[in-house]
Amino acid sequence: MSEFNNVTIVREANVYFDGKVTSRTVVLEDGTKKTLGVMLAGDYEFNTDARELMEVLAGEMQVQLPGEEWKTYAAGESYYVPANSSFKLKITGVADYCCSYL
Amino acid sequence: MSEFNNVTIVREANVYFDGKVTSRTVVLEDGTKKTLGVMLAGDYEFNTDARELMEVLAGEMQVQLPGEEWKTYAAGESYYVPANSSFKLKITGVADYCCSYL
Repeated sequence: MSEFNNVTIVREANVYFDGKVTSRTVVLEDGTKKTLGVMLAGDYEFNTDARELMEVLAGEMQVQLPGEEWKTYAAGESYYVPANSSFKLKITGVADYCCSYL
Repeated sequence: MSEFNNVTIVREANVYFDGKVTSRTVVLEDGTKKTLGVMLAGDYEFNTDARELMEVLAGEMQVQLPGEEWKTYAAGESYYVPANSSFKLKITGVADYCCSYL
């Protein structure tokens, strides 16, 4: 297990796609924001404002980044999503992730 | 929105019932433990070690506490679950909750 210390966490969940994707917002001491989330089986598309680092904590994600082929990321792997863009995901099991807003 | 400050959060999710119930563990400055979780539609039963305070943050929960009738708790309401017992839940939508281990 890994953890974030001395952070602020927003109690209320962020809920998307009827709860198939949910996350909690965490603000670190330096003010940077992350979300810790879970994606259940399904196909999703998300837009980005800031550039994002997506770390797969458990499970796996099939991801299509803008202009790229579909690629599978497993637990321990990560990918960057450009700012002001969108990315598609196909989830088959349960994916646990950490998203950092850069 | 409400928040917890100066806490530790475990990055990896707690996953139950194939992801239909997931939560994150939060440890407060005084060492007390809480989980922030989401329950999707389904019927569940959980056991308790410590006495628990369950606060419904969003959505609603139908709950059967030990030896009691089924009762519905909506957002803003809460209930205690005795230590070393179990409780049943029926969730119809998406329930967001905070569990405090007392």
